Amino acid sequence: MSMDRPLIVTMGDPCGIGPEIIARAAAAGALDDALVCGSAPVMRRALAAVGQRRPVAQVDEPQDAGTVPTGTLAVWQPRGLAPALEALPWGRVSAAAGGAAAHCIEAAARAVMAGRGRALVTAPVHKEALAAAGVAFPGHTEMLQAVAGGVPVRMMLANDELRVVLVTIHVSLRRAIDMLDEPGILQTLQITHSALQRFGIERPRIAVAGLNPHAGEGGLFGDEEARLIAPAIDRARAEGIDARGPFAPDTVFMRARHASGHPGEFDAVVAMTHDHGLIPVKYLGVEQGVNVTLGLPFVRTSPDHGTAFDIAGRGVADPSSLLAAARMARQLAGG
Amino acid sequence: MSMDRPLIVTMGDPCGIGPEIIARAAAAGALDDALVCGSAPVMRRALAAVGQRRPVAQVDEPQDAGTVPTGTLAVWQPRGLAPALEALPWGRVSAAAGGAAAHCIEAAARAVMAGRGRALVTAPVHKEALAAAGVAFPGHTEMLQAVAGGVPVRMMLANDELRVVLVTIHVSLRRAIDMLDEPGILQTLQITHSALQRFGIERPRIAVAGLNPHAGEGGLFGDEEARLIAPAIDRARAEGIDARGPFAPDTVFMRARHASGHPGEFDAVVAMTHDHGLIPVKYLGVEQGVNVTLGLPFVRTSPDHGTAFDIAGRGVADPSSLLAAARMARQLAGG
Repeated sequence: MSMDRPLIVTMGDPCGIGPEIIARAAAAGALDDALVCGSAPVMRRALAAVGQRRPVAQVDEPQDAGTVPTGTLAVWQPRGLAPALEALPWGRVSAAAGGAAAHCIEAAARAVMAGRGRALVTAPVHKEALAAAGVAFPGHTEMLQAVAGGVPVRMMLANDELRVVLVTIHVSLRRAIDMLDEPGILQTLQITHSALQRFGIERPRIAVAGLNPHAGEGGLFGDEEARLIAPAIDRARAEGIDARGPFAPDTVFMRARHASGHPGEFDAVVAMTHDHGLIPVKYLGVEQGVNVTLGLPFVRTSPDHGTAFDIAGRGVADPSSLLAAARMARQLAGG
Repeated sequence: MSMDRPLIVTMGDPCGIGPEIIARAAAAGALDDALVCGSAPVMRRALAAVGQRRPVAQVDEPQDAGTVPTGTLAVWQPRGLAPALEALPWGRVSAAAGGAAAHCIEAAARAVMAGRGRALVTAPVHKEALAAAGVAFPGHTEMLQAVAGGVPVRMMLANDELRVVLVTIHVSLRRAIDMLDEPGILQTLQITHSALQRFGIERPRIAVAGLNPHAGEGGLFGDEEARLIAPAIDRARAEGIDARGPFAPDTVFMRARHASGHPGEFDAVVAMTHDHGLIPVKYLGVEQGVNVTLGLPFVRTSPDHGTAFDIAGRGVADPSSLLAAARMARQLAGG
């Protein structure tokens, strides 16, 4: 096993399904190039929850991952991680769990930034647990952005058929409309273009979805297309970015969809709102979706689901989205 | 052929793809129970455009459809239809074409209302042509609503996997949010419930999509769910309607999707905005979608595409959505 620069996988909230989906994926041999950043006893509990006997080896530094034999789960327990996390009840919001999850994310991100890991894959955290622990960030994206020095980032959701990048995310729809501006849309196009190029697409074809029905129907159903979106596209094109649109939101995702016998017209779609973008990505099943943070100086992916407290610890959680996230991280990091 | 109560199919704008998709469907034997409401010469031109020699028989009243032999296209030319429509150029906006299309829609709707037809299937019209003809309605829905005495209606889009009913349609997204109110949402639920019952679903399971990301995330991302949507659902449930939600828009359509090995959880999803509803219905291909007007005292379906002036008259237009619309009309009208 080459663990020279492992994939670093954070355990997520120890009381959620993160540890057990990692355990199932590892037991299936799908994480042999990965180092888990988390608590070794939490990972032992997770392996037991999914009925697996795989041994766990704890390392103190990511560069020690190579000393762990194949068939053993390598867990890097970063300095300062709280003890006794394995005693926390499954499926409950806990400040200790939130704090530990955040601690691992930060350590793992710094390690990947420093070149000690190939890419970062994060298991789900719980917003309320982070807040209970006094973590200053509402979620992964903001935390990683801070570690990376505040670079502008965007959320991309991707599956085998479709890549979607969002201009606005976790705000009310009304506020999302208020927040739309030409610089924000242009920046999304720039980030999308650079990221797709880094991911190996030489000249990414980027479709831009409108905001309004029929992309405004020539101004009859709203003016954001003419006032904000089209000018941002024009500026992006002037910079050599192959951005096109704005297109009617209800058909652009279908046009971009890559399926057998249906080659998509675009490499990614930029959507103005959270749900315009996520409805089509999730339509064929959440288990296939991967969340990718664009704009960071390293590759970061995550499964497209939460901590699922309602089923945590029962050994029934589906690792498909985590596996897809790991596959995409390898692919984006260049194999 | 039983033409006792035929399916009545309006020709749509004579300069668009309506006549030729009808011609192709008829030539394939898929409209043997249908009477076209339109111009016989226009239908002859359309048959020629698609390379079919099927004879056309003109009747003056819908009840004469039974006199037309099988293998012959029955065309009911309503009194007062403008002459020489077959001389209009393909693919151009024309007042004469718009006026003729509207004339046929009104005649066909009145015939179906009077029980002379089993259901109404409408081929596409062109908004600008209707306006050029001085037609007081922007499209089919408003015209049919007027013929039916102003009853409240809603647009449903359906394919084999998903049925979606829209609370708001052709307005800007900002205005759609402003227009949302509890009575309008409740009325949508009532119309959806009654229509699905009429269509043979005894106790329709209706999911209601929220407006905001994560259905408002407990008020953090908007209050329309708590202020308008949840109260409307409560009132609907008090009336015995099995309405549930509001659910996160990005996952409710996936949950409602009926596919092989994936039985949907709901019979229909009510969406607050045009694109929340239409993105998932169209994602797998426009050619499968059917538009159904709910609330009318008769069944009306239409293909989910426009007049496609860019390809009209070339004989290449795909009749799939029209065929799906005819199949759904038969099914909804009880076989």
